[in-house]
Amino acid sequence: MMDRIVAISGGVTSPKGFAAASYAAGIKYRDREDMALIYSEQPCMAAGVFTSNVVKAAPVVWDQQVVEKADYVKAVIINSGIANACTGEEGMKLCRATAKTAAEVTGDGAENILVASTGVIGMQIPVDRIVQGTKELLKRKDTSEEAGTKAAQAIMTTDTHKKETAMTVALSSGTVTIGGMCKGSGMIHPDMCTMLGFITTDAAISKTLLQRALSEVVQDTFNMISVDGDTSTNDTLVVLANGMAGNQEIIAEDEDYQTIKEALYRICEYLAKQMAGDGEGATALLEVTVQKAKTKADAKILAKSVVCSSLVKAMIYGHDANAGRIMCALGYSGVSFRPEKVDLYFTSSAGKILVFQGGIAADYSEEEATKILSEPEVTVVVDMHEGDASATAWGCDLTYDYVKINADYRS
Amino acid sequence: MMDRIVAISGGVTSPKGFAAASYAAGIKYRDREDMALIYSEQPCMAAGVFTSNVVKAAPVVWDQQVVEKADYVKAVIINSGIANACTGEEGMKLCRATAKTAAEVTGDGAENILVASTGVIGMQIPVDRIVQGTKELLKRKDTSEEAGTKAAQAIMTTDTHKKETAMTVALSSGTVTIGGMCKGSGMIHPDMCTMLGFITTDAAISKTLLQRALSEVVQDTFNMISVDGDTSTNDTLVVLANGMAGNQEIIAEDEDYQTIKEALYRICEYLAKQMAGDGEGATALLEVTVQKAKTKADAKILAKSVVCSSLVKAMIYGHDANAGRIMCALGYSGVSFRPEKVDLYFTSSAGKILVFQGGIAADYSEEEATKILSEPEVTVVVDMHEGDASATAWGCDLTYDYVKINADYRS
Repeated sequence: MMDRIVAISGGVTSPKGFAAASYAAGIKYRDREDMALIYSEQPCMAAGVFTSNVVKAAPVVWDQQVVEKADYVKAVIINSGIANACTGEEGMKLCRATAKTAAEVTGDGAENILVASTGVIGMQIPVDRIVQGTKELLKRKDTSEEAGTKAAQAIMTTDTHKKETAMTVALSSGTVTIGGMCKGSGMIHPDMCTMLGFITTDAAISKTLLQRALSEVVQDTFNMISVDGDTSTNDTLVVLANGMAGNQEIIAEDEDYQTIKEALYRICEYLAKQMAGDGEGATALLEVTVQKAKTKADAKILAKSVVCSSLVKAMIYGHDANAGRIMCALGYSGVSFRPEKVDLYFTSSAGKILVFQGGIAADYSEEEATKILSEPEVTVVVDMHEGDASATAWGCDLTYDYVKINADYRS
Repeated sequence: MMDRIVAISGGVTSPKGFAAASYAAGIKYRDREDMALIYSEQPCMAAGVFTSNVVKAAPVVWDQQVVEKADYVKAVIINSGIANACTGEEGMKLCRATAKTAAEVTGDGAENILVASTGVIGMQIPVDRIVQGTKELLKRKDTSEEAGTKAAQAIMTTDTHKKETAMTVALSSGTVTIGGMCKGSGMIHPDMCTMLGFITTDAAISKTLLQRALSEVVQDTFNMISVDGDTSTNDTLVVLANGMAGNQEIIAEDEDYQTIKEALYRICEYLAKQMAGDGEGATALLEVTVQKAKTKADAKILAKSVVCSSLVKAMIYGHDANAGRIMCALGYSGVSFRPEKVDLYFTSSAGKILVFQGGIAADYSEEEATKILSEPEVTVVVDMHEGDASATAWGCDLTYDYVKINADYRS
């Protein structure tokens, strides 16, 4: 399967028939592009996963209906700066107005247009600006790689860099392409993807299987990252498949399905790790791998508990091997285990070191541990010695800048 | 009931027959006292609640056995600086050695001595220093208020001030006194008390009722605070009752029981709020009251979700009325509710302001909101409009200093 999936330069415009655009609509940010379009020449099968938050932003409510009920999707209109969450009936009207404006240009129905927003909760989006922006985006749609990259930049909020990737996938009946982009930096916590993410593919695949693959892949990727434990009101991840690669449609869980699911996994894992590493104020990507746990469910809960601990995150920022905090975070996870069996390691490009053995501090060099913890990507390996299951979670360190960014986000 | 309970100056030495002491044993801290003693002239009934963390410090394991099995308790030996957690069999030996040393002086059994530790996880406590310190403490025991205060100071770690309080309680057969002290600043999260706390009383009360009152009161006090979401390995709260006030022993859930339980509630609420407000790096005490919820259980989960949100905490630090984050934290709490019914208020000594009404932003003055949020004690009031239940949780803001303290705690 390895050779069949090849990473390439690109993003959402890499698959055949997809275009993108970006535009400075002045919704909240000044002097930067704050709206983006993804457009498909042909109708797309759409699958999606959305926030588990009871307080759902208006675009989430809109998109859930579109993904569930519409025959196809033709375009996505995205804005950054204002989340359109806690905006009541006015927020839903804005979604309808945006979709209707786009649909009039594309010749489809409003129900064939997805919308997505990210930014401050509780503020209203100026309807004239988003309508105007939608028209401008459709005028500018472009299939170039650059157009995709600029769209990935336009959806950023506190992100420090754009996040996009693409891969080709050799199926039995021809090669297809998958591309993706996402944004996310704060209000990031595993329970759905806690972000905006858009994946495009020219593969032909049934809606049912597209949704199944997405839902499964998300469990081990976007749902395993955390920046701050706050599950957003706006989490949205959609996949659009327009079938233009000309492969034989995937309608069963055959080898092609497994191949394309693996490619989707790699796209999602890449984007999820990019988000975790670009967490607000972060200086390091923190990866936590729990192995030899009793069950996969246990391993996931344990890994998430460590990656979410403020004390562990602050320790990573300080390059301080205070591994007792990791034992503590395992202990309050809710999983039952025997502390006296646990081994802990720190690993990074600077080396690997055993810091706890059998539940107590090992004899290790503090100097070496500090060196390992000073790299931009640090992994904590937890060996439970209780079974065969493993899981990995991703997060970042807790820094002064996280506090700075969030003490005064609105200004 | 109000008039029967009167706050007085003092702490653990306020009730009859209790002495305290403190001593600089040099266990980890230099140039400060780091050990404390609580001693009762007469044997005490003991009740306790302990951490829910699977990784339990050795003193927690020791104290659980003492509270459950010993006929009485005579003294508590406490150290700060090293937690004696993740220390294996050596850690348990240290507890036995400490208790045995104290018991030889007091003429009791090792099983009549409680021990408690707080500080860094994973380091061993030097046994010679703690044995020497235990002997010194017993030589210095003193019933003065000052001795109690110095003990409250000696158990501090990252706390910025000592936490103690006392009250007299008029029962039907005479007046009794309750005193308490605690420490706690980081690794504070509701699930048991997440701290060390010691409450003394000269009331006569059965062990069963003492435990029942404590367990119930903790649910609404210590278990409703959070600093950072990390439930410690060392959480310990014990109550010692020596019966020396001479009241008729409380053996039924009568009026006297209700009165003393109310006094215990006030002691615990006071100490819990002191801990929340003195959270590591905190500049403000954050109180979250959820009212008109469907059930008490719902109200507690909702209040805790808001008080634990990093984004809400950072917003309080920035005096920024970004109330959408509160809606978001309510939404991911796991409680089902109707967002369009929720009203949110900010209140402090500077006034009260409605910021969200019916789930969307109200028309309010940002200037006034900032003024209200700039006080050292800030309350968020959440009105669910769904029932009659309410609950309150306490926490603190998230600041640069929290990161600073925890990025390099061990040095």
